[in-house]
Parts: sequence; C-alpha cells; structure tokens
Amino acid sequence: MKASGTRLFIERVTREGRQEVEDFVAEEMPLTIILNNQELVTLLCSPEDLNYLAVGFLVSEGLLKTKEEIKRVLVDNHRGVVRVETTKENAEAGELIFKRLITSGCGRGASLSRAVNAGEMGKVTSEKKITAAEVFSLARDFQQRSQGYRTTGGVHSAALSDNQNILVFHEDIGRHNAVDKVFGQSILEGIATDDGTIIASGRISSEILLKVARQRVPVIISKSAPTDAGVSLAREMGITLIGFVRGGRMNVYAGGGRVTSGS
Amino acid sequence: MKASGTRLFIERVTREGRQEVEDFVAEEMPLTIILNNQELVTLLCSPEDLNYLAVGFLVSEGLLKTKEEIKRVLVDNHRGVVRVETTKENAEAGELIFKRLITSGCGRGASLSRAVNAGEMGKVTSEKKITAAEVFSLARDFQQRSQGYRTTGGVHSAALSDNQNILVFHEDIGRHNAVDKVFGQSILEGIATDDGTIIASGRISSEILLKVARQRVPVIISKSAPTDAGVSLAREMGITLIGFVRGGRMNVYAGGGRVTSGS
Repeated sequence: MKASGTRLFIERVTREGRQEVEDFVAEEMPLTIILNNQELVTLLCSPEDLNYLAVGFLVSEGLLKTKEEIKRVLVDNHRGVVRVETTKENAEAGELIFKRLITSGCGRGASLSRAVNAGEMGKVTSEKKITAAEVFSLARDFQQRSQGYRTTGGVHSAALSDNQNILVFHEDIGRHNAVDKVFGQSILEGIATDDGTIIASGRISSEILLKVARQRVPVIISKSAPTDAGVSLAREMGITLIGFVRGGRMNVYAGGGRVTSGS
Repeated sequence: MKASGTRLFIERVTREGRQEVEDFVAEEMPLTIILNNQELVTLLCSPEDLNYLAVGFLVSEGLLKTKEEIKRVLVDNHRGVVRVETTKENAEAGELIFKRLITSGCGRGASLSRAVNAGEMGKVTSEKKITAAEVFSLARDFQQRSQGYRTTGGVHSAALSDNQNILVFHEDIGRHNAVDKVFGQSILEGIATDDGTIIASGRISSEILLKVARQRVPVIISKSAPTDAGVSLAREMGITLIGFVRGGRMNVYAGGGRVTSGS
C-alpha cells in the first residue's frame, strides 16, 4: 500500500528569494510488536499495514514460520502496537529472542543470523528463469507504482512478482520494513514466494538477502547497489541478485544461470 | 574517510547480450560494541573508522557525553569488536541500557528517546546564520567528496562543516553510522559542533534529528527528504532543517530564521 504523506507549509529558498509553499513529507510512527505478551521491539515505520509489518518482522526474525501458527493479530493503530498470538510458546525461546534482538539491533545482526541460519536454510533451488526483458518491464512497473516516493521523496518500496505482474506492493520509510510488509502479506494471504521475484528500491545488504532466502525467493532485483556481504550470501544461497537496473542495463551479481538474455 | 569497495566479477546484461565485467561493491561487516565489558549491540557497517563509530554510537545513545569520560578505546578490526572503557560504571544503567537498546533496536526507538530526551535537552539556541549560497556550496563540496557512492553506489555520507569548509567527513553503508562516525571523530578530536552544520546524504528521520540535537548542532542539510517526525522534532528543538538541496533550490522545513537569502 502507498505510504501516506503529511501536509506541511515550508519555505522554498533560492539565491534570489524565498516563498512559502505547501509540501508533503513521509509519515513516521513508532510501532511496538508484542509476541505472546512479550514486548519484542519498537520499529519506526510508515503507518500503513501494521499487521503485515508485524507478521513479516516475526517471519524475518525466524520467530514465526507459517500462517497456521498464528492465532490472532491485534492491531492498535492509535497506540502503535501490534500483538501477535501464536500457537507456540516463546518462553522456550526467551533467552534466544533476547539475544538475537539485541545483536540484531540497529544492524540486524547479520553475523549471528548468518551463522545460525544460512547453513541451516539450504540453497534456494527454484528452476524459475527470468528474461532480461522481464526484468526491465518489472523495474518499470515497480517505478510507476512507487507513488510515495514521487509525493514525499522519503520512502522505500518493495514488491513480490511472478515475473509478469506485481502481486504485492508496499512502501515504508524503512528499507527493511517495506520488504517485511511484502512477506507479511504473502504469509497472511497464502501467496507463494518460492518461484517469485522480489523487487526492492533500496540497497541490497546481507540482511535483505537473509529475509529473501528465508522465504525461498529465487530472484531479487534492485535499481540500487548490493553490499559485498549481500553478494556473498546470494552466491552461497543460490539466489539470483540483480542490481543497478537502469537505462536498459543491469548488473547480475549472483545466480546468472536464471537470467536469460533477449525477450 | 572513504568507504572501501570489494572487487568482484559480475555479468552486465542488456536485451542484446551479456559480458563479464569487473565491479566494485561496498564492503559490509558486523561490529560489536562492548561498553565496560558489557556487550551492547552488533551493527552492520563499513569497515573504516570503527573507533569513531563506536564512540559516536555511544554518544548518540546517551551512554557517553564527553571525551573526558573515555578511559580507553580498543579496536579489534579483525574480530570486528570495539571495547570502550569509561570512567562511569554502567551497572547502574544496566536495566535502562538493555531496555533502550531493545526498543531502540532496528528503528532506534524514537518514541522512547523522544519522550525521554527531547524535553530534557532543551532548544538549540545557536545564533549562527547560513546563506543560501553557503548551503549550495556545501552541498556541492559534499557531493564531490562522496567518492564511495560513485565507486560502489552503496554508501551514505555525512559531514560536519563550519559553513565554509567540511571539517569531518565519513561514509558508511548505514545512514546512521555515517552520522555517528562524524560525531565520534568530533568528540575524540575536540571539534566543536554547537555552531556547525551537519550534511547528510540520506533521509532525515527523527532518529537523525535526535543525534544532531544531542550534539547541539543548529543546522542540518540533506539532498533527501525528511519525515514528518523529523520536521516536528526540528521545529520543537529549534534546529534548522533543510532538505531537497538540488538544482539551486532548497526546502526549509524548520528554523528558517537562520537561513538568509542571497550570497
């Protein structure tokens, strides 16, 4: 869903002078996620689709796997709280959750997650192919959908596609949140991700790659750059990582076997 | 300091064909910060100037105020660990630190920090002025310094300026880290920030505003957009917030009294 903007009066200044103008800036709110009565984290995010964000966050952190585990998702938009109740007790995970969320703090702890998960998860083995023409077409559709950026200039976008169409699309002030919202909706609505393509507006770091790997998505596309750890992880996990999709060109950093030239 | 790049071989693909080319991508590493033997957090960052990052992070989190409190900063580049020893025990703060780092986790807990700190800190009262011409000139210098982006396309930059010259400049894959490195170096080298201007490449959220407010910096400039909470906080704290500095124009979102037209 499109991220909303707040209307403000600001001054536009040039060398020649200044004038008051109306402007729209991206909204930012704190969201606290509570899993089975345990307060886990407070994220800053765009105020839409908090249920998807909470579920996606839990999935990305490995605290939730399937829709069937979810008993209830209670959203309090006003207080900025989402409570997720699951069939699993997280008492068992108490120490682990705590440790992970700290090390995973601001940088989201790729070191720990990587050590723990990349090996366990196993390679992404989808035989899905994607043509260069499909990549360019998806990038164009994605750009057109990214309304929030054009209005406020302050949000990231992420989408899930079947290579022909965009199936799920979200915007958020947080690069991670946009991706988590996409996976949250996919889980809640039973949309398969394991032959899909993720399109993201932001930089592809190891943390984003881990989210994608966890959902077994074989292809990720961005108009931005990856980091070296993002590329390493993509190569290790068998994920196709395409960056810098711009002006009829793209850089394929990993998994080039899935990319076929031509249309 | 310039963020480094890792050399990789990748494929460049167009509709017409593909070729192997050499590319540079931004490096990403995990850094664990230990304050007086207490492990606080693991950040993902660019591998330069880890001492500045650690000190800047502690300062931004309110766990460290002055250079005089620092007994020792030990950097282990190989293991990705910085140990900071201070004259203050953080046992007292145990519970608080813990709580803050969790809520401040991925989103850096503006809600808590704001409630706790914005009021306590008091308004930024510097009478420093800046002309439109100075803003454009600084933005141009800043852009020219941002080598890392041009090489790898994957890093953010931040700088401290006295309105004439850039005094401190850092790049990092993390928007927050780049700003923390600037403040870390300022603290360690005794460079005053309270009449300075911060220039940042990324979006200006409430979290960035809080860092700037804590160091009593009166002006922040970005070529990107702010969030609504960033604007609110700037207005509340008396900070001049200038965004979208592009093509001879800028948007002044807060504190326009410090901005004088002309050259």
